[in-house]
Amino acid sequence: MRLLVINPNISEDVTRLIEREALRSAAPATEVVLATARHGFEYIETRFESLVAAGAVAELVAEHHGQVDGVLVAAFGDPGIPALKEISDVPLMGITEAALCAAALQGQRIAVVAISDRITPWYRDCIDRFGLGSRVVSIRSIKEALGGIGAVQDDFQDVLVDLAGAAVREDGADVVILAGAPLAGLARNVRGLIPVPVVDGIAAGVRMLEAVCGLDGGGHRAGSFAAPPPKPRRMLPPALDAALATLQKGAR
Amino acid sequence: MRLLVINPNISEDVTRLIEREALRSAAPATEVVLATARHGFEYIETRFESLVAAGAVAELVAEHHGQVDGVLVAAFGDPGIPALKEISDVPLMGITEAALCAAALQGQRIAVVAISDRITPWYRDCIDRFGLGSRVVSIRSIKEALGGIGAVQDDFQDVLVDLAGAAVREDGADVVILAGAPLAGLARNVRGLIPVPVVDGIAAGVRMLEAVCGLDGGGHRAGSFAAPPPKPRRMLPPALDAALATLQKGAR
Amino acid sequence: MRLLVINPNISEDVTRLIEREALRSAAPATEVVLATARHGFEYIETRFESLVAAGAVAELVAEHHGQVDGVLVAAFGDPGIPALKEISDVPLMGITEAALCAAALQGQRIAVVAISDRITPWYRDCIDRFGLGSRVVSIRSIKEALGGIGAVQDDFQDVLVDLAGAAVREDGADVVILAGAPLAGLARNVRGLIPVPVVDGIAAGVRMLEAVCGLDGGGHRAGSFAAPPPKPRRMLPPALDAALATLQKGAR
Amino acid sequence: MRLLVINPNISEDVTRLIEREALRSAAPATEVVLATARHGFEYIETRFESLVAAGAVAELVAEHHGQVDGVLVAAFGDPGIPALKEISDVPLMGITEAALCAAALQGQRIAVVAISDRITPWYRDCIDRFGLGSRVVSIRSIKEALGGIGAVQDDFQDVLVDLAGAAVREDGADVVILAGAPLAGLARNVRGLIPVPVVDGIAAGVRMLEAVCGLDGGGHRAGSFAAPPPKPRRMLPPALDAALATLQKGAR
Amino acid sequence: MRLLVINPNISEDVTRLIEREALRSAAPATEVVLATARHGFEYIETRFESLVAAGAVAELVAEHHGQVDGVLVAAFGDPGIPALKEISDVPLMGITEAALCAAALQGQRIAVVAISDRITPWYRDCIDRFGLGSRVVSIRSIKEALGGIGAVQDDFQDVLVDLAGAAVREDGADVVILAGAPLAGLARNVRGLIPVPVVDGIAAGVRMLEAVCGLDGGGHRAGSFAAPPPKPRRMLPPALDAALATLQKGAR
Amino acid sequence: MRLLVINPNISEDVTRLIEREALRSAAPATEVVLATARHGFEYIETRFESLVAAGAVAELVAEHHGQVDGVLVAAFGDPGIPALKEISDVPLMGITEAALCAAALQGQRIAVVAISDRITPWYRDCIDRFGLGSRVVSIRSIKEALGGIGAVQDDFQDVLVDLAGAAVREDGADVVILAGAPLAGLARNVRGLIPVPVVDGIAAGVRMLEAVCGLDGGGHRAGSFAAPPPKPRRMLPPALDAALATLQKGAR
Repeated sequence: MRLLVINPNISEDVTRLIEREALRSAAPATEVVLATARHGFEYIETRFESLVAAGAVAELVAEHHGQVDGVLVAAFGDPGIPALKEISDVPLMGITEAALCAAALQGQRIAVVAISDRITPWYRDCIDRFGLGSRVVSIRSIKEALGGIGAVQDDFQDVLVDLAGAAVREDGADVVILAGAPLAGLARNVRGLIPVPVVDGIAAGVRMLEAVCGLDGGGHRAGSFAAPPPKPRRMLPPALDAALATLQKGAR
Repeated sequence: MRLLVINPNISEDVTRLIEREALRSAAPATEVVLATARHGFEYIETRFESLVAAGAVAELVAEHHGQVDGVLVAAFGDPGIPALKEISDVPLMGITEAALCAAALQGQRIAVVAISDRITPWYRDCIDRFGLGSRVVSIRSIKEALGGIGAVQDDFQDVLVDLAGAAVREDGADVVILAGAPLAGLARNVRGLIPVPVVDGIAAGVRMLEAVCGLDGGGHRAGSFAAPPPKPRRMLPPALDAALATLQKGAR
Repeated sequence: MRLLVINPNISEDVTRLIEREALRSAAPATEVVLATARHGFEYIETRFESLVAAGAVAELVAEHHGQVDGVLVAAFGDPGIPALKEISDVPLMGITEAALCAAALQGQRIAVVAISDRITPWYRDCIDRFGLGSRVVSIRSIKEALGGIGAVQDDFQDVLVDLAGAAVREDGADVVILAGAPLAGLARNVRGLIPVPVVDGIAAGVRMLEAVCGLDGGGHRAGSFAAPPPKPRRMLPPALDAALATLQKGAR
Repeated sequence: MRLLVINPNISEDVTRLIEREALRSAAPATEVVLATARHGFEYIETRFESLVAAGAVAELVAEHHGQVDGVLVAAFGDPGIPALKEISDVPLMGITEAALCAAALQGQRIAVVAISDRITPWYRDCIDRFGLGSRVVSIRSIKEALGGIGAVQDDFQDVLVDLAGAAVREDGADVVILAGAPLAGLARNVRGLIPVPVVDGIAAGVRMLEAVCGLDGGGHRAGSFAAPPPKPRRMLPPALDAALATLQKGAR
Repeated sequence: MRLLVINPNISEDVTRLIEREALRSAAPATEVVLATARHGFEYIETRFESLVAAGAVAELVAEHHGQVDGVLVAAFGDPGIPALKEISDVPLMGITEAALCAAALQGQRIAVVAISDRITPWYRDCIDRFGLGSRVVSIRSIKEALGGIGAVQDDFQDVLVDLAGAAVREDGADVVILAGAPLAGLARNVRGLIPVPVVDGIAAGVRMLEAVCGLDGGGHRAGSFAAPPPKPRRMLPPALDAALATLQKGAR
Repeated sequence: MRLLVINPNISEDVTRLIEREALRSAAPATEVVLATARHGFEYIETRFESLVAAGAVAELVAEHHGQVDGVLVAAFGDPGIPALKEISDVPLMGITEAALCAAALQGQRIAVVAISDRITPWYRDCIDRFGLGSRVVSIRSIKEALGGIGAVQDDFQDVLVDLAGAAVREDGADVVILAGAPLAGLARNVRGLIPVPVVDGIAAGVRMLEAVCGLDGGGHRAGSFAAPPPKPRRMLPPALDAALATLQKGAR
């Protein structure tokens, strides 16, 4: 199984964090292909930054069309999800939806721990869209300014553990998601410090994607995730244009 | 008051329909500036087409930054909303949210009449995101293939009126939205044929935007629609890059 | 365009506040007609007071039947809404629903600032009924006893600004509604002190009513806001009785 | 125990139906006092008719203040509920909320059978307000014109039984409410014809009111159903004015 | 009327508390039969303990099949509800659903006061399942370790009253439920100390059950609470096996 | 990895169907241990049958305590979930929650195809409890009587495919779950006949359980899924008693 894992942001250091955790999580037979957004932001905190990232991800998805068995969009907040599912004929998912499922299968009340305050409304939008908003009891976040994005999990490990603990004690959380690709791998280090199951977005994403790919339940030849119906279009990035053409041919 | 009205699609004939209705709806003192997406699709039926359109709209918003008093995104389904609000220091809204408000102020149960079946899940997403999903009792749609997008309202007027009538009789609708920029202006012609108030997306968009601009309640210097916080970025379209820089300076 | 703006309470000084803001908000071509409830309370804090006010408003609506192009019920909490829409053949709305729409078009998370603690459950009922309860993150209120109702905005300006600020900082509000006719006009004075858009109920009411009247989408000849079907009735106020008779004739 | 049962409508023949069922349902030690609205409509089908009825009920509640141990508002749709609870220092409830509770305690999915199509949106509003909207799977109604309101249950018995049967078969209802005071007593006659428990609004109202009165859990000295705080008022019906004065004295 | 009141737990001292309040609450003509779970826990705090209790209750329900007119499951959290309704041909209810109805008929916003922190997620599940989750504003609980379960109401009376008071002041509760059979009878002692109506689960259970039994609206011959359809089964407790056989015969 | 897969019903032929699909779905390194309920029903259609099954499953879970790395409860409707999670110190999940996650990660609107009409309300309860009720657009079911439960998928393959097709065409489903252990393995045979992804409950259960076990995020030492706090208990099945004792020791 060959999985494309896309960092929707331009931060190569976060790509390396993602890669490390993806490789540790993937099954022996799984090959992981990493890609990093060519344009966009260092990380996503807002709805607009997410929109820009979604465009960058779309190009990467299209460029890998036909070459992979599944695609993981590796930024919490799931930029471009669910729209991007329409342009993939293999399972494509975001790490938020994967993490939410992994959490919901372990506990009733879910808490999310996030790296910045500004990021939380976008997360809430994403969670509500997925339909599990009633299960998420809190999104707690670091309040201080971040240094380098690739160092967040080191700089703020104690703060993040404290936020998780507070979510358990005060919000009644049964399970905690450490949200955001910059925290990839942190769960392994801190799970002993948090008294409920901890979910790592990247790990959950890789494993859930493997699971869904493995189900092999067939593609979208109908419904709202089938390829967009053919119609005049103009000036799309060439790979995207080509992928759409291929998909639309397949859908007939 | 100077309003930018953006057709998120590449269809110039729909831009002309939009323009005609926008001019009829705008107050005497309002100046309407039209813009058409330079890349993208002839019209939007799917979540992915909407995502592409959102990118095209973002560029146009940025290009007109500082030159207009309000922005209307003139495709039902509100591509890029609410993300685009972050990059505008004047009110910016979509015609779906405007039409929903215009409808909700007139009746309790709202029906939407749409131009294609495939379009309806995307509309439902958009309506639910706005928070008025509990008020929308049905989305009824044309089931036949469309001819030219600019001619839909002429080709299917009877069908559309029948769909509206069925929504009133069978779904208990108190008000009907004729959804989609290609139907701009149709409400004026058919309101006598439909026994409840009819809402035209473009007309509602222009008038609601005038209303909100007129309120002049101040901008977003805090909260989740303030300008995205400065952080490294790369290879954004130049106008967008410039607009972000200006906004971030202003936010300080 | 001729708009009837009704103060559902007996407080003439609040009527003057409403009038002043309505005149400042209305378009040049709009004529504003003010009316004050002849019976009822100085202001509304409870569901029962709202019920009494609704009866008083109904009489005023009926007395002006056929003489105006739109009606605004100018008390937050929308006494008599949506019932009163059935006895008006022109658009009739409340300032809460208008303010909610104006707010929802500007931000995702809405806060309401209110003049008394007791008033908040009634507001919550009204907001939930309109269907935008999921968007309203908090209703914060003055906790101290009020002096004269006409002086609330002067006596408590600092408190109200502080409540708005707390709603932004602690509740994550993107937009704030200053609720209640006694606060009419306050938004103009304080918008610089609040870092998100501020919505004035009266201003929003006038402008949203103008917008909906301007849409001119047709009346309710069917659905749940059509005139009540004729049936025996007894001892209604004469104007109401006459208005019902006229409406029922028109509906045939 | 002395219970006031109010017909919110002017229809004396419906009052007699209500009385007959109330007497059959009441415990031996319960005294039932009937009252009929002095002004208003023959029956309520719309939100506005309900608003008028609420005013008429308020006067009757006030006139009996201090003389009864509980009050039942005997029209489905619960005119004036919950506002009227503020002006009663004994339990006061509507037959819809009582019937919903009686139904919800017997089955998961509730169907409502109603006497007219126009009546159903008002019922839906009332059900949603009470908070059990998710339990009500359908409101089915007579589609034909009614003859005399007091004869509906005789004229349409077969139709009503058929509607109940369809609700069970097609909507998956576990329990059926025969809604509306004009149907008082019908459940006794038809329960053998309907394969799930049948709830009569008047019978449920009397028994639920007896139950709540019997609980004797104390009144509302705080919270949103305490008496409205004193403030200037003008020209209320004298009994209402007197009741308010008494309540406000008691609340101190 | 003969009512079976089941303590789902093995605690005989709580059975005595239940009995005392049940006898005080029941109508003169009502006979109350008490039963105590033969296996299980001293009291229920968790979902699993509730599951075990549900099994114990099922046996007791079956053993009394045909001998009583109604069944009350007397533990807050309603173990086995709604499943147990399928094996009873007389009304069967839990004290949570009864208390919620009694509360919802008196106030809009309901608070629950509970005996332990761990118990609250189970209560929340139960409340949400019943469909009145939107009405319950808080569940407040004793934070200290309990002594003997039969003495909780004596040991913690002041704490419980304080929790109720805080629910009114801080959560805006209009009515308070003292939750849990160990608190049976407490409401009578403390209602003067709490400024809103107080609901006792056992008292509400007995009175609501009397009310529903009295309605006599017919049984479940169809729908999801009819007897389970016959199919092979093995090794059920003999009384349960016999009751199922009888019910399935009756359903034909 | 060693997974315990429990058939909550007494039907050995269904256990064989489960086993076959579990083995085909499991990763090479996964060992699958099957267990069949010793008491209960041939299959579960109702809430009560599910309650009985939950008790039987609890015993099996306890008997395997400490011997497996994860537990799958292999009946749609998830008998005993979430309660049983409290008595397992390894991940334990039901096939409904697993299938819902697998479906929600592939499409927005989910349809469920079920083997009997009576089964659907129980499924709806389970889906709503999990929190994804808003995503499930329909539960369609076989209407005819079943022959042997082990032969349902053969006897009704065409009917089931037609139900799935109707869910896509008429309900707008993006993904279809073939629900119920008796349908284990059917998805492999029919996926080409259904134009959207098809989810098999057993396959999804095995793969999701592998994924969550693999995450290894730590256990529940706090929150509502920690072991039930120690308290007097009586006459539990010995294995259950022992497992509880062990868990409670571990939790300290």
